[in-house]
Amino acid sequence: MKIGYNGTGDKMINYPTKKTKSKTSFVSSAHRGLSLEEDINKTNAYYLVHKRANVHKKPTPVQVVHVQYPARNKAKITEAYYKRPSTTDYNGVYKGFALDFEVKETNHERYFTLGNLHQHQLDHLQSVHEHGAIAFLLVRFSKFNETYLLTYEKLAYFLETMTRKSIPRAYFIEHGHLIPYTHIPPIDYLKVIDALLLKE
Amino acid sequence: MKIGYNGTGDKMINYPTKKTKSKTSFVSSAHRGLSLEEDINKTNAYYLVHKRANVHKKPTPVQVVHVQYPARNKAKITEAYYKRPSTTDYNGVYKGFALDFEVKETNHERYFTLGNLHQHQLDHLQSVHEHGAIAFLLVRFSKFNETYLLTYEKLAYFLETMTRKSIPRAYFIEHGHLIPYTHIPPIDYLKVIDALLLKE
Repeated sequence: MKIGYNGTGDKMINYPTKKTKSKTSFVSSAHRGLSLEEDINKTNAYYLVHKRANVHKKPTPVQVVHVQYPARNKAKITEAYYKRPSTTDYNGVYKGFALDFEVKETNHERYFTLGNLHQHQLDHLQSVHEHGAIAFLLVRFSKFNETYLLTYEKLAYFLETMTRKSIPRAYFIEHGHLIPYTHIPPIDYLKVIDALLLKE
Repeated sequence: MKIGYNGTGDKMINYPTKKTKSKTSFVSSAHRGLSLEEDINKTNAYYLVHKRANVHKKPTPVQVVHVQYPARNKAKITEAYYKRPSTTDYNGVYKGFALDFEVKETNHERYFTLGNLHQHQLDHLQSVHEHGAIAFLLVRFSKFNETYLLTYEKLAYFLETMTRKSIPRAYFIEHGHLIPYTHIPPIDYLKVIDALLLKE
């Protein structure tokens, strides 16, 4: 699988909000250059094939303005614009539970800027949480190559009790769950979900 | 809400697989011309606002080939193609359960052609069903303005026991669940889900 291919058949060409890769040398040699999104797509593909879960990235919504039909049954979109999604990027089903999460990456060392999360994504996470889904964030601190799972409850607690515009890395260390990089699958986040389900 | 607007912010312009509306006079005067997809989108919007469920239509996947940047932070897609989705169109969460379904409409009076369902959609329904999601089809026989919910189990039973390339309307009548048109929300499919959950 090549870099630039996200594992779902989408070529990620010039997508305007795509994060640039971390250029730091902190990243371990075992794991070079794949974005968290690419790692998650590979992980989900692994889960699907091994029948552990069925989780998919939603396609990026596009507002189509003009379509040409150069041939019968062949539509060529000649004018379209990216739209802001009204949900999170990932959802699916695991052990009968609905899963719903957003994937984010930051180059900051000490904090995750809340501006990375749009209000409608927060509203969506709250809504699916209230309907009983397992809702969470996956956040990678690229400089440390650390990926944390932060449950919606812990995110909501932070938002309710803090006024700051960013979540410190220390909050992820204390209230999140570090997901070790395991190669196959890269980011085995269901292990954390299993532990959380056992606790309940 | 105007016809042609599907309630999710997507204008359905020239989407190549969009069904033409039934022109028959069988359709009751209480319900003119909205496609099943538009009815389901309105129903889901109603469910969301009234906190009954969180169900969304997935964006149509588009393969973007070329993007222009006429202005900073503004991306204009100038060449793209529709892709075949690898999942069903709708999923979400209801009472903690993952919901996953496909919406189809037919103009035939006596049967629903299985060619309307792609193999990967069937595979996806089977997969999410095995992972514990509530998986089903919503099929409208436009000429009778009848919308049926057919569970994945009943669909799989038909596919396993029959060799024909279409499902007779009689099968929907016997093994499906007719969903009355109720205006607000148009197609209250969660009522059927509630009844099915009670049975289990």
